[in-house]
Amino acid sequence: LDRFPYDLWSRLIARRARRSLSTVAFYQPPAGYLPLREAISVQLGISRGVRCTPEQIILTAGAQGALDLVARTLLNPGDEAWIENPGYFGAQGALLAAGARLVPVPVDALGLDVATGQQRSLRARLAFTSPSHQFPTGVTMSLGRRLALLEWARQGEAWIIEDDYDSEFRFSGRPLEALQGLRRDGRVIYVGTFSKVLVPALRLGYLVAPPELIDPLLLTRRFTDVHVPVLEQLALTDFIQDGHYDRHLRRMRRLYRRRRDLLQGELRRQLAGLIEVSVPDMGMALVGWLPPGKDDRRAAALAEAAGIFVTSISRFSLEPLPRGGLVFGFAGTEEAGIRRGVERLAAALTGL
Amino acid sequence: LDRFPYDLWSRLIARRARRSLSTVAFYQPPAGYLPLREAISVQLGISRGVRCTPEQIILTAGAQGALDLVARTLLNPGDEAWIENPGYFGAQGALLAAGARLVPVPVDALGLDVATGQQRSLRARLAFTSPSHQFPTGVTMSLGRRLALLEWARQGEAWIIEDDYDSEFRFSGRPLEALQGLRRDGRVIYVGTFSKVLVPALRLGYLVAPPELIDPLLLTRRFTDVHVPVLEQLALTDFIQDGHYDRHLRRMRRLYRRRRDLLQGELRRQLAGLIEVSVPDMGMALVGWLPPGKDDRRAAALAEAAGIFVTSISRFSLEPLPRGGLVFGFAGTEEAGIRRGVERLAAALTGL
Repeated sequence: LDRFPYDLWSRLIARRARRSLSTVAFYQPPAGYLPLREAISVQLGISRGVRCTPEQIILTAGAQGALDLVARTLLNPGDEAWIENPGYFGAQGALLAAGARLVPVPVDALGLDVATGQQRSLRARLAFTSPSHQFPTGVTMSLGRRLALLEWARQGEAWIIEDDYDSEFRFSGRPLEALQGLRRDGRVIYVGTFSKVLVPALRLGYLVAPPELIDPLLLTRRFTDVHVPVLEQLALTDFIQDGHYDRHLRRMRRLYRRRRDLLQGELRRQLAGLIEVSVPDMGMALVGWLPPGKDDRRAAALAEAAGIFVTSISRFSLEPLPRGGLVFGFAGTEEAGIRRGVERLAAALTGL
Repeated sequence: LDRFPYDLWSRLIARRARRSLSTVAFYQPPAGYLPLREAISVQLGISRGVRCTPEQIILTAGAQGALDLVARTLLNPGDEAWIENPGYFGAQGALLAAGARLVPVPVDALGLDVATGQQRSLRARLAFTSPSHQFPTGVTMSLGRRLALLEWARQGEAWIIEDDYDSEFRFSGRPLEALQGLRRDGRVIYVGTFSKVLVPALRLGYLVAPPELIDPLLLTRRFTDVHVPVLEQLALTDFIQDGHYDRHLRRMRRLYRRRRDLLQGELRRQLAGLIEVSVPDMGMALVGWLPPGKDDRRAAALAEAAGIFVTSISRFSLEPLPRGGLVFGFAGTEEAGIRRGVERLAAALTGL
């Protein structure tokens, strides 16, 4: 967070407050500021293969605001919803708050296990997934699974929420495009956020929905938060259009890549035999898998007692998992801290 | 909106973005920035007789964000909720979105008719009311009704949402205190907004809840919008603490009072016999009542055809009303516009 260009941002915000706020002071369109939606649609098309018009984009209070808006609009109380297991707390919470019955669907090396989902609940109204870089395992969903998921949604008239979190931080290779862009008639709502590239406290995220969902989503919106605050939207438009977004993103990608490489190297060197590192090619975290049978909650507790904050994969799970692991965030820790941390962790885990 | 001090606001926002944003860039407490909640609790105590600690205050995306948060947290689908009739769209929408069954309760010259509410639904879980200055009629709820409403809530373990909209703009007399402050054990959630004193596009509102509701409300919050953006909260704290809020409010009160006086005078002069003006001692709108039997929707349509935008009281009603009326906003119209508008309205309504 200390690398964000606060001076630049404060200049952009101040300029817009002075020059533009008086012209946009009244209630704004619930979908958000159109030039920002235009900038996002261009960006998503190039970087993520998302196909959409600006009219399909709705600005939200972070990704959480998007998950909430979609869940409330598309689900009735009691509806079943597939949720990746292990999976993201925030999605579980948004779906539960909308009255959904959660159907945990296992994630394996190919991503969400669509066939098991169909066995457990063929008639679910919605599936939540993070196919690019599954949270928390980091697995990328295979093309076959993606097509199967899209086909399931088409046949059952269900919806898919694609959470493309952290996909901005891609370190290598040609990016796998978003699920959203795979089929023109895909029943996909794509969710993204600016919390990671910018800062979370700005509360800016967005969703991309099929055209027929925009009116229902905006109707819900009118009776919830009406719209997100205008100044952040104006400043972000400038930030993107003037090239600051791309520059900042490139800088952060290089930084995070160095930290990822260092962390995986240190884990392999100091925890060989205990932890099997899964190296993601995007994101801000990696998973160290424990040998089957080792208790990852206990490992996380031992680490925490030594001042190292990692989360067990089991904490994100609604049912027992075949193998435990630890989730290591690397984006926010300086290189010296990573080295020291892994050393301390290795000492702490000798008792596991 | 053109009277808001945009230059000053842009300086405050810029200063906070430069000096403070880096220290509050991560996810913030879901209830909002504590110094702002402290400032609001002091302000509400003095101006509205609201008794609360800062810990009882939650910042929200305008008043609508507060209504939504409360309705979602306190209601289960199918629960009955009293709603003032005629009443505020936004409250109807928030309650419906939470799955409530709306029970319209008539408003008479003493405010919400509690006895009729009890006949229609004794077991409602919640009542929505705007006792200081009922929307849209402008009626102030009597003390007797207030005590009856509080007692009903106590006995049935129901909750009362008190929407104290526009009460900042009090023109005369000693302000009647908020329902919230009447009883220490009152089951009241007080809702306010900065949309009217500042500008709506900033999306800042708040609620004041009994201590036992804070945790449940914040749990819902975590899975909806997480918190409102931080910069507006920081700038607003300065705006209040440096005295700008009070100065701006005094200026706007004088302006709105002049416009109210002019509008009521013109209506009495030019529409005597057709419109009976009810003069509010607070707010940004007044009601002109039509003689019983006159169709207020038709009157509003005739006015609109002449370029005058007024809303019929019937539009805010879920059931037929004993008497129709027109709601005139006076806050946003220059004096010459008010004169010309009433003239045109008088001409347009001759055919009613």
